[in-house]
Amino acid sequence: MSIQFGPEYVRAIAPYQSGKPIAEVAREFGLDEAKIVKLASNENPLGMPESAKRAMFDAAAEVGRYPDANGFELKQSITTKYGVSPDWITLGNGSNDILELAAHAFVQPGQSVIYAEYSFAVYALATQAVGGRAIVVQAKDFGHDLAAMSEAIGADTRLIFIANPNNPTGTFLPASEIEAFLKAVPSHVVVVLDEAYNEYLAPELQYESIAWVKQYPNLLVSRTMSKAYGLAGLRVGFGIAQPVVTDLLNRIRQPFNVNSLAQAAAIAALNDTDFLQKSARMNADGYRQLTAAFEAMDLEYVPSCGNFVLVKVGDDDSAGADVNLALLKQGVIVRPVGNYGLPQWLRISIGLPEENEIFIAALKKALT
Amino acid sequence: MSIQFGPEYVRAIAPYQSGKPIAEVAREFGLDEAKIVKLASNENPLGMPESAKRAMFDAAAEVGRYPDANGFELKQSITTKYGVSPDWITLGNGSNDILELAAHAFVQPGQSVIYAEYSFAVYALATQAVGGRAIVVQAKDFGHDLAAMSEAIGADTRLIFIANPNNPTGTFLPASEIEAFLKAVPSHVVVVLDEAYNEYLAPELQYESIAWVKQYPNLLVSRTMSKAYGLAGLRVGFGIAQPVVTDLLNRIRQPFNVNSLAQAAAIAALNDTDFLQKSARMNADGYRQLTAAFEAMDLEYVPSCGNFVLVKVGDDDSAGADVNLALLKQGVIVRPVGNYGLPQWLRISIGLPEENEIFIAALKKALT
Repeated sequence: MSIQFGPEYVRAIAPYQSGKPIAEVAREFGLDEAKIVKLASNENPLGMPESAKRAMFDAAAEVGRYPDANGFELKQSITTKYGVSPDWITLGNGSNDILELAAHAFVQPGQSVIYAEYSFAVYALATQAVGGRAIVVQAKDFGHDLAAMSEAIGADTRLIFIANPNNPTGTFLPASEIEAFLKAVPSHVVVVLDEAYNEYLAPELQYESIAWVKQYPNLLVSRTMSKAYGLAGLRVGFGIAQPVVTDLLNRIRQPFNVNSLAQAAAIAALNDTDFLQKSARMNADGYRQLTAAFEAMDLEYVPSCGNFVLVKVGDDDSAGADVNLALLKQGVIVRPVGNYGLPQWLRISIGLPEENEIFIAALKKALT
Repeated sequence: MSIQFGPEYVRAIAPYQSGKPIAEVAREFGLDEAKIVKLASNENPLGMPESAKRAMFDAAAEVGRYPDANGFELKQSITTKYGVSPDWITLGNGSNDILELAAHAFVQPGQSVIYAEYSFAVYALATQAVGGRAIVVQAKDFGHDLAAMSEAIGADTRLIFIANPNNPTGTFLPASEIEAFLKAVPSHVVVVLDEAYNEYLAPELQYESIAWVKQYPNLLVSRTMSKAYGLAGLRVGFGIAQPVVTDLLNRIRQPFNVNSLAQAAAIAALNDTDFLQKSARMNADGYRQLTAAFEAMDLEYVPSCGNFVLVKVGDDDSAGADVNLALLKQGVIVRPVGNYGLPQWLRISIGLPEENEIFIAALKKALT
């Protein structure tokens, strides 16, 4: 058959490459699932909070029913926590959904979307899926060059993605720089501030992005519950923006995009500050553990504010893929980032202390 | 603020109106949640199968991890059940996701999409969300007029939605009519055959749509696990099409669109033929119970092949809304269908025998 369906811009998309699931690696390399260490998808190594698990089990009795399409109770929890009213909230099937909704709501084929080199792969995918023209602004020290991004805005620009901290590099933009950027962006261009890793920020780096939402009608702050909150498998995230933007996102949102168990678990997790603190503390410890090992091994890494570290494992462009394969054979799954234009690097999610230890030992073996 | 964001076609969308959640009705009308009967969303009144609940609980331990983006094991189950290989399968966050993916993958702003009057509201929403031009073909006896739909195909038509059985009317198209239609559709126009209610078909009406998929590269069969399988709250559905179509859907699919628990529960439910048979049997009994009551009350209804019945509750255009309100006050939630152009009708999901009884009593009271 030589029939082609769909517009050229859809046919040109290369699908997202996710972290290899444990079961898949076990199948491919003939390994025991129980012994595999996965540090590939920036998940919380503690898993989901017990509070959320209880809420999820309580909600299981009603799984035959559709979820609440309006997420009444979950929005109430977000309202309480962030001080915005429910009509400022869009619930998403993970924050991935929020990012895609933004592209669908604001960009028509041919219009431009700006994002940074080495930023989250979904920005490119969401742009391609709507036939948007990507303007990829060169990174500065592995992070966003906001001045250059501001310069890149054209008459047809409708959307800008900013990640803080950025994935896969872990770089951080101080509040003052973002604020200056928001002032410079024309008011008809929507800025998505993706704060998927916000909960891992050290206290001295924290800032109030919700206050900016109140000031800028073109700002959409995106949050996920897949990282520090430990709910990656359930799929829940949310966007906060003024009603003028939120209303449009809700018009194109699939009505039942967030499942019932995710809604129930998210309410519990949002209120579980102990779990969040424990997760952040363990992450800070793990970061020191990994970076100390990298320094001892004389490996270059990018200082990270997320729950992962980007480390350079060789000078050849095959280094990332080679070392990744050597790690996989030892049952350690990390993330190669060649598709991000970083073929000499690997992204390592911060795990439990013993997982980090196993990874470090495997890396040493892989590099000799 | 007078700034407008997004294209006009997005701003013009009226969001989907879902069945009112029980909790919301309890809040609004000051009723006891436990006493409310919800026959509004074509859910399985038996809830989820026990087999699926066990599988879901087993999978709960891994909720901190992302779901398998490729749905390896769930696709294996679908492969076994339907005899198509994994590269013919697209997993969706409910079949709603499959319908939307089809619109996004195949339709550019200004191109036309064909669907029938009185067919599922999401066809219109998905069309609007991509700026498609809707060609709504007049219904024949509350169902699809396939000859007229075939006539309506234009040079710019990219997608046609067919529902069998149709929601909200319950009408059925025999296999021979669909087959003739598929023969008539130009090979570059994608046909979505939405079989959300397929599992409720009486044995003598059943047909083999998967065989058509093998014959027609432009056919996408959509299935949901929200109806007979009892998993509405978990969100899982799937599309079956040849790789040329499936590949495009997977390029724009959100990588983690189907959560881990849905994947686990779906595998169990797909294999639980006892539960499916019990659900279909109970539905057939409930259909007789409801329609006997309608006949006794001298109310017109549309003969239905789904798990719901469309019934005419008055001659005024306010009848549906009025009777709906009178039912809500008695704690019975059904679905008004004024937004479908059927303001004199209500759609009643078939419930448990005792739920049907409560509804019938409440309807009698509402009509006097």
